[in-house]
Amino acid sequence: MRAAVLVEPGRIEMQERPVPAPGPGDVLVRVTTVGVCGSDTHYYREGRIGEFVVTDPLVLGHEAAGVVVAVGEGVPAHRIGERVSIEPQRPDPLTEETRRGDYNLCPHMRFFATPPVDGALCEYVTIGAAFAHPVPETVSDDAAALCEPLSVGIAAVRKARITAGSRVLVTGAGPVGIVVAQVARAFGALEIVVTDLDQRRRTSALSYGATRALDPRVDDPANLQVDSYIDASGAPSAVDSGIRAVRPGGTVVLVGAGAETMTLPVQIVQNRELVLTGVFRYANTWPTALALVESGRVDLDSMVTARFSLDKTAEALESDRTPGNIKAVVDVTDRPGEE
Amino acid sequence: MRAAVLVEPGRIEMQERPVPAPGPGDVLVRVTTVGVCGSDTHYYREGRIGEFVVTDPLVLGHEAAGVVVAVGEGVPAHRIGERVSIEPQRPDPLTEETRRGDYNLCPHMRFFATPPVDGALCEYVTIGAAFAHPVPETVSDDAAALCEPLSVGIAAVRKARITAGSRVLVTGAGPVGIVVAQVARAFGALEIVVTDLDQRRRTSALSYGATRALDPRVDDPANLQVDSYIDASGAPSAVDSGIRAVRPGGTVVLVGAGAETMTLPVQIVQNRELVLTGVFRYANTWPTALALVESGRVDLDSMVTARFSLDKTAEALESDRTPGNIKAVVDVTDRPGEE
Amino acid sequence: MRAAVLVEPGRIEMQERPVPAPGPGDVLVRVTTVGVCGSDTHYYREGRIGEFVVTDPLVLGHEAAGVVVAVGEGVPAHRIGERVSIEPQRPDPLTEETRRGDYNLCPHMRFFATPPVDGALCEYVTIGAAFAHPVPETVSDDAAALCEPLSVGIAAVRKARITAGSRVLVTGAGPVGIVVAQVARAFGALEIVVTDLDQRRRTSALSYGATRALDPRVDDPANLQVDSYIDASGAPSAVDSGIRAVRPGGTVVLVGAGAETMTLPVQIVQNRELVLTGVFRYANTWPTALALVESGRVDLDSMVTARFSLDKTAEALESDRTPGNIKAVVDVTDRPGEE
Amino acid sequence: MRAAVLVEPGRIEMQERPVPAPGPGDVLVRVTTVGVCGSDTHYYREGRIGEFVVTDPLVLGHEAAGVVVAVGEGVPAHRIGERVSIEPQRPDPLTEETRRGDYNLCPHMRFFATPPVDGALCEYVTIGAAFAHPVPETVSDDAAALCEPLSVGIAAVRKARITAGSRVLVTGAGPVGIVVAQVARAFGALEIVVTDLDQRRRTSALSYGATRALDPRVDDPANLQVDSYIDASGAPSAVDSGIRAVRPGGTVVLVGAGAETMTLPVQIVQNRELVLTGVFRYANTWPTALALVESGRVDLDSMVTARFSLDKTAEALESDRTPGNIKAVVDVTDRPGEE
Repeated sequence: MRAAVLVEPGRIEMQERPVPAPGPGDVLVRVTTVGVCGSDTHYYREGRIGEFVVTDPLVLGHEAAGVVVAVGEGVPAHRIGERVSIEPQRPDPLTEETRRGDYNLCPHMRFFATPPVDGALCEYVTIGAAFAHPVPETVSDDAAALCEPLSVGIAAVRKARITAGSRVLVTGAGPVGIVVAQVARAFGALEIVVTDLDQRRRTSALSYGATRALDPRVDDPANLQVDSYIDASGAPSAVDSGIRAVRPGGTVVLVGAGAETMTLPVQIVQNRELVLTGVFRYANTWPTALALVESGRVDLDSMVTARFSLDKTAEALESDRTPGNIKAVVDVTDRPGEE
Repeated sequence: MRAAVLVEPGRIEMQERPVPAPGPGDVLVRVTTVGVCGSDTHYYREGRIGEFVVTDPLVLGHEAAGVVVAVGEGVPAHRIGERVSIEPQRPDPLTEETRRGDYNLCPHMRFFATPPVDGALCEYVTIGAAFAHPVPETVSDDAAALCEPLSVGIAAVRKARITAGSRVLVTGAGPVGIVVAQVARAFGALEIVVTDLDQRRRTSALSYGATRALDPRVDDPANLQVDSYIDASGAPSAVDSGIRAVRPGGTVVLVGAGAETMTLPVQIVQNRELVLTGVFRYANTWPTALALVESGRVDLDSMVTARFSLDKTAEALESDRTPGNIKAVVDVTDRPGEE
Repeated sequence: MRAAVLVEPGRIEMQERPVPAPGPGDVLVRVTTVGVCGSDTHYYREGRIGEFVVTDPLVLGHEAAGVVVAVGEGVPAHRIGERVSIEPQRPDPLTEETRRGDYNLCPHMRFFATPPVDGALCEYVTIGAAFAHPVPETVSDDAAALCEPLSVGIAAVRKARITAGSRVLVTGAGPVGIVVAQVARAFGALEIVVTDLDQRRRTSALSYGATRALDPRVDDPANLQVDSYIDASGAPSAVDSGIRAVRPGGTVVLVGAGAETMTLPVQIVQNRELVLTGVFRYANTWPTALALVESGRVDLDSMVTARFSLDKTAEALESDRTPGNIKAVVDVTDRPGEE
Repeated sequence: MRAAVLVEPGRIEMQERPVPAPGPGDVLVRVTTVGVCGSDTHYYREGRIGEFVVTDPLVLGHEAAGVVVAVGEGVPAHRIGERVSIEPQRPDPLTEETRRGDYNLCPHMRFFATPPVDGALCEYVTIGAAFAHPVPETVSDDAAALCEPLSVGIAAVRKARITAGSRVLVTGAGPVGIVVAQVARAFGALEIVVTDLDQRRRTSALSYGATRALDPRVDDPANLQVDSYIDASGAPSAVDSGIRAVRPGGTVVLVGAGAETMTLPVQIVQNRELVLTGVFRYANTWPTALALVESGRVDLDSMVTARFSLDKTAEALESDRTPGNIKAVVDVTDRPGEE
């Protein structure tokens, strides 16, 4: 099979690799669509994210959809032919974290496109059968792939305890911020303020659930009063302002990957008894993600602003610099030169 | 002022009474609209509800909106002229229940239209200033009054832990069931099955958020699998079936006032570790109620199917027997014969 | 190996069976001690518990400790020789319930001594490696076996939300009631009232954490006011009284296996917004159980009031009728006639 | 009456003031004991704490016990003569925060010894009747006064979700740290590691519930693995290490008053999905506090290491510099020179 392999920072090479065999409990999935995530681009450019360092060739991509083409031992054959959205993680079912339901925190996790585990920018991948979620007919391959970032948004909104009537601040109107705004609306939030330095992104946020979009250089979000604040920017100044916007007893959820340490207004956290936490991937989100997409409460399809063939993976990874870009996808079924 | 007084079971008498004076911390409200609740009708017909017995003349009505016309000591004068939705309860701020936020459970509660406390079917009432909630301009008097049953729905949906993607069963498509369905939708529920014996009511439920409406004599709800079940019927057979529909770890909330005791399938509650609870009025619901109405996520206006002047209170109390009736209101500003 | 097999109601037969081979991920445990549970006795006498019917010969026993003597594929060899307490369940790691941490509710569960799955009243059993919990040196085999009923108590006390300062009612002072009282104390409860019809059992409860022991025929528990009520009797009259004892907003947890249906005072559940639920086995309790035993906060050893060899399994199953009996254990290492 | 008044930083003056009259709903308390808190000393030395600045003469002291000697309107006369522990706060019952049970977060709070509200270092104070908690006979005046810092500990331990079997880290073995360790034990924690730079304090911690006491310069707490971490030091380096000690999904509670901002290892908070919050005073803690003291689960009496008369308030405020000091109290009943 063909795979787009990161061989060194800044260089993707197309390689032929053997199709993997599904192990016990696994399915083999022929990949159709893979979304490009900021973390893929980060590995591509820098060769590392924090303590995760790419030392050997790595296949990127962890937002993926496809079709089951074979099953491993113990998986019913009727799954062959099923369209699936891939939850790109393999937790160890026996760890304390997994057993209590927080499998995203499993210390033995093997996660797609995180060294040394390969990702989905290739023609075939294997995954645990329960992590290949059946996709309703009306949900597109693109949307099925983007259930992964949607899951991040669901995890964040749950931790932020957003519910009907909530007032929410989201800093950052990139793909994660936009997904968070949509999910907040689906959970019943009525005021959803999104901030971003970029005018285009602010405008885009308004069409995805934001009820207001602010330029933080003009309107300081610290002057708001919200129930929940979710950071999707990773910017220390945004986080500082955002925390100041939260009402006593409210919540702060950090999603944006940022620096190792950050200077926070802890006196406000203390005096208002804010509850501050972070999101690390997700657990138990896919059924909700697929239901929100199927029902039309969340729109993922229109977030796709660029499409590339697998051969053009490097261009896809660079496309975040294109103005107006929200989400690029690699269409693995697109085989230029074939026929 | 004029008041519609229940003087004995089945007999409402119009009486002249002195306008009450607002005590410290209170506002005086000129009543505009009062919704008629099943409990009003029950007191009217039977003279009692369970242990609450009407022994002295009683003014009914606890779903009320109006305009602040005077303020008691300690309440700022600028509130005069404010349109308000009345939260018809006076908890004791010092009890353990009130202090921990469960003020609806306060043992010293004084609640409108519950013997011996008079209700709102009259021209003026007093209420604690914080229990007279300012109404946004776009919200009608009718909707402001119906924030009271809406609050019951919010309390029920919160206790049922309904959230984005939830599958919900509601038994009973009377006004409470319809409100619950609407609130469940606003909280993000995607499957909302409502049951009722009455065809008209089932049809009505479908226009208020239900995604399916079942006749339980034809389709046993016990065959469903839902995350949350809310009873708005009070019927033992409905409750028995409803509990059987809930998935392991799901919730059961009893709203419908029913018998003192009920035979429940406790083995299912145990084996599935269902969480079963009830709703007794509400606490901390009005801000959410008003926000849901203002945003259009919940529609209360169209639920008003009959309108009466204060003089016709007895007819309003009888109107539950009119086919197609959902909610009758008494328009206290309507003074036939005046000018 | 030798196994005590229930061949028909009332008849246990000693059989020779092959030692099972540990599958992938399993350990093979040489059993040392097995506690006798009321459910074992119930199967022994009646051949069924509710919908679970013994149709084929069945090995009873699900409260077990032992020593790891072999490991299956994927389990490190260093576990051989480890003393373990057995969590006698095999949930399917892929079901929704297991994934969210409620593995006790897994619909594909295979549980010891529940038809058609054999239990531990034999010389060797296999179990998933993560369900064979290492036992600290200072914890006896008896106590290691009784971590199973202790886990039921922990699950109940968690669901009852018992914490420092809680006032608790427990109906029933059999082994489950006594464990619940001990666990409630370890969670910080300060008033622990236990009821039982039997004088001996009431006295026994007082030495296991109860601060008062009542004869319900003399002192109606309905007159108490408690934060949490746990039923460990299964008796409808106890449950009715117990629910009436709970303060507004308090909890009710049904542990005692009882009838399929029960008539409950639902108006009290509603008007006080009680939270009622049940316990079905346990999840994520063993680390807590072992820590409570090791620290001395819970005493299981002295609960063992009778001890039998494997050959005397039938006598062990009958011993619940011995006055003063709390918990009988079968000592599988005791081989009379050997040497 | 006599009052110890802070007239300028570093200067306490004894003044004669009129005995206050209890307002409606209040009781008048003759003060017996007042504990000295670090915040009192801070105001005494610096004249301010963060944004709270002493501009006018101020009576310090907010840890107080006494005897009811008069009642205001609406308070039953039988309370006269009652020994009480004072919860030194007056929330506004009408704010959103108070209504939902978080009255400590009430924006209109009036709190003892916080400018411009006088405290308890005087002979008589008034307080809302429900905030004067009856003291059991066996609880001393000292312990009744120290229910205030105990309440801080209870609030912290609740937010840290400490329960039976928890492993806990506490940084700082001053009076707050010692109270937290005791409360953690009463909530069932089994491993309680306390760190402090001071050898005496570490030794002291071991007699108040700590199972280990570490010098953080020798043993870095970051190497621990705990479920919950509570800071009672306010030291940034302690907080940094402490956060690193928490297992995935665990909790961090900041109690120690520290700087306005702090640099935190947010990547660890995110990657482990830690829940970080702060404690600002307390709500709904007194019943638990008094029950823990009465039952002997918490020992406050032995924490009193120095005792002063009201005349010697300045010395009491300076006593934190005495080696071995844990908690100084002012015995207001001690009137040297009287007789």
